[in-house]
Amino acid sequence: MNSPSPLDRIRIVLSHPSHPGNIGAAARAMKTMGLSRLVLVNPKSFPDGEATARAAAAGDVLENALVCSSLAEALAGTTLALAVTARRRDLATAVRWPRQAAAELVAGAASGEVALVFGHETSGLSNEEVALCHAPVSIPTNPACSSLNLGAAVQVLCYELRLAAEEPGEAPSGALEPARFEEVEGFIAHLERAMVKSGFLDPEKPKRLIPRLRRLFARTRLEKEEVAILRGILSALETGPYRPPEDRANAPSSGKAN
Amino acid sequence: MNSPSPLDRIRIVLSHPSHPGNIGAAARAMKTMGLSRLVLVNPKSFPDGEATARAAAAGDVLENALVCSSLAEALAGTTLALAVTARRRDLATAVRWPRQAAAELVAGAASGEVALVFGHETSGLSNEEVALCHAPVSIPTNPACSSLNLGAAVQVLCYELRLAAEEPGEAPSGALEPARFEEVEGFIAHLERAMVKSGFLDPEKPKRLIPRLRRLFARTRLEKEEVAILRGILSALETGPYRPPEDRANAPSSGKAN
Repeated sequence: MNSPSPLDRIRIVLSHPSHPGNIGAAARAMKTMGLSRLVLVNPKSFPDGEATARAAAAGDVLENALVCSSLAEALAGTTLALAVTARRRDLATAVRWPRQAAAELVAGAASGEVALVFGHETSGLSNEEVALCHAPVSIPTNPACSSLNLGAAVQVLCYELRLAAEEPGEAPSGALEPARFEEVEGFIAHLERAMVKSGFLDPEKPKRLIPRLRRLFARTRLEKEEVAILRGILSALETGPYRPPEDRANAPSSGKAN
Repeated sequence: MNSPSPLDRIRIVLSHPSHPGNIGAAARAMKTMGLSRLVLVNPKSFPDGEATARAAAAGDVLENALVCSSLAEALAGTTLALAVTARRRDLATAVRWPRQAAAELVAGAASGEVALVFGHETSGLSNEEVALCHAPVSIPTNPACSSLNLGAAVQVLCYELRLAAEEPGEAPSGALEPARFEEVEGFIAHLERAMVKSGFLDPEKPKRLIPRLRRLFARTRLEKEEVAILRGILSALETGPYRPPEDRANAPSSGKAN
């Protein structure tokens, strides 16, 4: 049971889509981002097995799609409509980037129905269609290759709509119990002793070795269990190879480290 | 003639893609956002007419794609790799959202090669593959339908990469030269050998020890010089105490030898 979301009041309108696969891809893109209201203006073929296949788990979005015969019909009842367009138009209104457009649509959805309109795969939206909308939206692209696949464009915009509608908050940090100060210090002291004992660190000329290692482990913010593992490794290495001492003399230095 | 862009140092790695159409869609998604370096790990079918068709104007991205037989090969030479994953993993590292991941990759691309890794369409990345990367990235989704099409996921991440690349970017991190993938792997392998030799790690029952240590060092993003220091410490500890054997019995721990 979902609580009402602004995403429920945002229509994704595809005008004159020619490839059924793109309709399915758009439905899937919508559903993964929590949108459900697909409106099709004069689709070339719908319903269509290819759309259903590409929709994957978003079959319900296709089933509930509205089919209209004009963009005006598709926009009936809306209070804000933005037109996704790659081309600069003669009568330029301020173009929105996706993030800005998403914020505007989500804000608009608080008080009414809103729509985001996508055009034909090749020819885009007609000037007449753009004129029915409040402003154009453009996805920033590589100037040398600016044409996104229709489903991909729907995915990008729906992704921004989801972010605008539901601030995702902090990503899961995954951190386990962090080590306490004295645990980390105990490990550093242990490491220092082991380095001195092994001859790696000359206590008379320590140089920057300990500060370098402190910096490394400070950056990683050690967990309690990690400190235990590292100290276990140190102790095992300090004790030396597991072979009894009398084996050492004759055994050729096998375990060489490259 | 383009000026060099951080986007030129970002590899998009698709591991085990099973649908050629998705490879083409990924190439198109990349090119529309100004990325060009596609790497394929064991693609089921490549080259393939369906990939070419879906790539549309991004045929050059396909033509220049590298095909590798393992993710390790695909990541050779990189200093940062992030794994796109929908699932929560047992050994969780802090998950990045796409925007944060993009900023991190673009910042990393200032000083080296970086990679963004996508898994198989259905099964995603294996735990072993995720362990070769520094951190996971998740696209925020509708919990009821969280599976984006592979090409759509590439589109969203490349879109964020383009936005991040065009922004002024991160404040200087203070990091020195980062270690490359194979340097870190060399250290992990060395550590594993030393742990086995010392008896700390039973290769028959490794449990979760190596993944735990991988996670620690992935989180810290080792620098080149740190890897050298850590390997030096390991070698010294492996060689054992610095004193010649005959001294051991009587000499109190005094000065140092080598």
